[in-house]
Amino acid sequence: MIWNEEIETMPRQDLEELQLKKLQATVKRAFNEIPYYNKKYSEAEVYPEDIECLNDIQKLPFITKDDLRESYPFGLFAVDMSKIKELHSSSGTTGKPVVSGYTEKDLDTWAETIARGLSMMGIGENDILQNTHGYGMFTGGFGVHYGSHKVGAAIIPISTGQTRRQIEIMQDFGTTGLIFTPSYGIHLGEIALEDGIDPKTLGIKAIGFGAEMWTEEIRQRVEEIFGAKAYNIYGLTELMGPGVGVECIEQKGLHIAEDIYYPEIIDPNTLENLGPNQKGELVLTNLQREGMPVIRFRTKDLTKLTYEKCGCGRTHARMSRITGRSDDMIKVKGVAIFPSQIEKALLRIGDVEPHYLIIVTRPGTLDEIEVKVEASQNLFFDGVKDMMAITDKIGKSIENETGIRVKVTLVEPKSLPRFEGKAKRVIDERDLH
Amino acid sequence: MIWNEEIETMPRQDLEELQLKKLQATVKRAFNEIPYYNKKYSEAEVYPEDIECLNDIQKLPFITKDDLRESYPFGLFAVDMSKIKELHSSSGTTGKPVVSGYTEKDLDTWAETIARGLSMMGIGENDILQNTHGYGMFTGGFGVHYGSHKVGAAIIPISTGQTRRQIEIMQDFGTTGLIFTPSYGIHLGEIALEDGIDPKTLGIKAIGFGAEMWTEEIRQRVEEIFGAKAYNIYGLTELMGPGVGVECIEQKGLHIAEDIYYPEIIDPNTLENLGPNQKGELVLTNLQREGMPVIRFRTKDLTKLTYEKCGCGRTHARMSRITGRSDDMIKVKGVAIFPSQIEKALLRIGDVEPHYLIIVTRPGTLDEIEVKVEASQNLFFDGVKDMMAITDKIGKSIENETGIRVKVTLVEPKSLPRFEGKAKRVIDERDLH
Repeated sequence: MIWNEEIETMPRQDLEELQLKKLQATVKRAFNEIPYYNKKYSEAEVYPEDIECLNDIQKLPFITKDDLRESYPFGLFAVDMSKIKELHSSSGTTGKPVVSGYTEKDLDTWAETIARGLSMMGIGENDILQNTHGYGMFTGGFGVHYGSHKVGAAIIPISTGQTRRQIEIMQDFGTTGLIFTPSYGIHLGEIALEDGIDPKTLGIKAIGFGAEMWTEEIRQRVEEIFGAKAYNIYGLTELMGPGVGVECIEQKGLHIAEDIYYPEIIDPNTLENLGPNQKGELVLTNLQREGMPVIRFRTKDLTKLTYEKCGCGRTHARMSRITGRSDDMIKVKGVAIFPSQIEKALLRIGDVEPHYLIIVTRPGTLDEIEVKVEASQNLFFDGVKDMMAITDKIGKSIENETGIRVKVTLVEPKSLPRFEGKAKRVIDERDLH
Repeated sequence: MIWNEEIETMPRQDLEELQLKKLQATVKRAFNEIPYYNKKYSEAEVYPEDIECLNDIQKLPFITKDDLRESYPFGLFAVDMSKIKELHSSSGTTGKPVVSGYTEKDLDTWAETIARGLSMMGIGENDILQNTHGYGMFTGGFGVHYGSHKVGAAIIPISTGQTRRQIEIMQDFGTTGLIFTPSYGIHLGEIALEDGIDPKTLGIKAIGFGAEMWTEEIRQRVEEIFGAKAYNIYGLTELMGPGVGVECIEQKGLHIAEDIYYPEIIDPNTLENLGPNQKGELVLTNLQREGMPVIRFRTKDLTKLTYEKCGCGRTHARMSRITGRSDDMIKVKGVAIFPSQIEKALLRIGDVEPHYLIIVTRPGTLDEIEVKVEASQNLFFDGVKDMMAITDKIGKSIENETGIRVKVTLVEPKSLPRFEGKAKRVIDERDLH
């Protein structure tokens, strides 16, 4: 079922005309209402009237995490705070989070994108959708929640954890749709099997995957475990949240809601725009966001776009699965973590050096992070108990900063590698490519 | 500001007429659409046409947790599942949770009750409301969330935890309203003070308290710490969620949204109805719930009602602060826990006896639960490591069952008291009365 047939199957020429109109309006509003854009565009000597065709978007400077940080918290808002109905944030590179603000209409736009996605997955008003994404400042949970309200499914907002209760509820409530990160999904399936319940018998019709990088092998495994198709959902808090792109039944790339997000692919080094089917960094623009229009945001996510018409009948461009990052962010259990956050957490603790190494593994089905930290030379331990106390303190400081529990290992002073130039702080041993 | 002036200041006679009309419609719908009620009422030989005045409600049998359990999961729903838009649940007495289902209109009714409450607290569209209640199956977070959308405040759905980040956000976003459990609020305040930030300087205008029992001393302490008034919010998942009653600026009892919930007070032993200002068990009836009308629900919460007109101008009855329970439920960190859940968790573990004692304390500002468990006689430990492993296993099983982390202490076989008749499993050392 196509949620918004008129928009989603619009001939590309009409779609591009619509995009241009919305882009022009967005750039004009940003220039007139948001001093940050006004200054940035004036300095670059580019003005709203310079946008005469879609390709003219390339004249506009990019927005990066640095811009979002500089304008923290509300410097990119185009409306008065009394019009803002909800605030979310994602972790930023320097400890200051990146803020996302929503008007009532924005919340509806957000719900619309997810409603389209749920419809692609075959989820509608007769379904019961168990949402294991976390709620809170993270946009994963709420995006799905609002979209579910819109298509009229019954949402179970259970969020992550309490795995056995999740399985009980799936059985008792007759859950037909599941939303999870691939690694949590596999964990859920394995716990069910451990308890003698075959997940294939649970009657799941469709699964929505999000908030984590994954491989086709993982998809296959999840589909086998639950006997249901698993669909990719992509999005990011800076632009709104999940729903930028969702896979249709063809499972050949994620349809970008192109009347709401304008996608580009650039070479992350030269910053030149690339053509269809060329892999590069995804750049996104909000085309109808009231509260906080973000124009040409560098996502750092690597993918490619195809504009060929899809077997499902939708005309909106498809992006392929994200296969990497053009920076050092790692995403674990749906949470984005930057090495700088670990650094900040360590600097709060007196007795350790800011030398550390982050090792990400996936020993079973769940991601694990180990942080190796150098003890300070003037730190002496009176035994295991002292060492436990300090590793515990480090662990708590990191959890407070990132929201993620990690394994902390103290190592000898000066035993970790030193770097000239850019430090390589992360060893990602998960096979994601 | 009064959110719904017409309804909230309605002369009592008009209000009672409205209540009667809604009660009659609710009983009729329940009888006609829900087999469970039809059977129960038929057996009691009471029929919709017997409700001729409000006092006739006393002819109807009570609904208890047992009824909710028997009709688990959807046996009290009055509509087709395709009309249900959201599902919540609270923990039940036997491990099977109690389910609450909402149609679109119900979600709006729920938001309406909280919108009235937030208005009582002086929170409106110019405010920024930081909601530290958990989201998920628990209704605390979502009730506040929907109410905030309705009054047009900007909600920060941060949920519990990451306390230092909470404080950073209060400072950076300019939070003007806070929602927390009293114990988390005090913890928040103390962490701020530890970091050299006086919570009084944060510009908080109002605080909403919920999901926990508290004393006037705790209120005073919270108000002193934050330099803002703290208001009580009451509700329960079975009836909808928070919003059944909220305190107005007079802080002399919680106004019950009487056009939406019909309150009675009964003697928990004789089950006779009591008059105004007499302390007993609160019984509540949904007056306009589509999805799952609950009629004469025994809350087990002890309070009293006054119908005197309030200084704020509202005519709706006020209930006094809950001072106890007529059963053995304990509420810790906003989560309701029954001894039977601990029992269920222990029975899953092989090496322990189902003899246990639950000790609830509030050593600092946060509630703590210790569970003492008898080791099985055929359990031998090869040292501390083994013992750690089994206590760890017990702790995880309890956490999985209740959602709460507890301290587990293994004690010698046969060292805990045995009971004749009803076991006393809970020692609540918090001073709540």
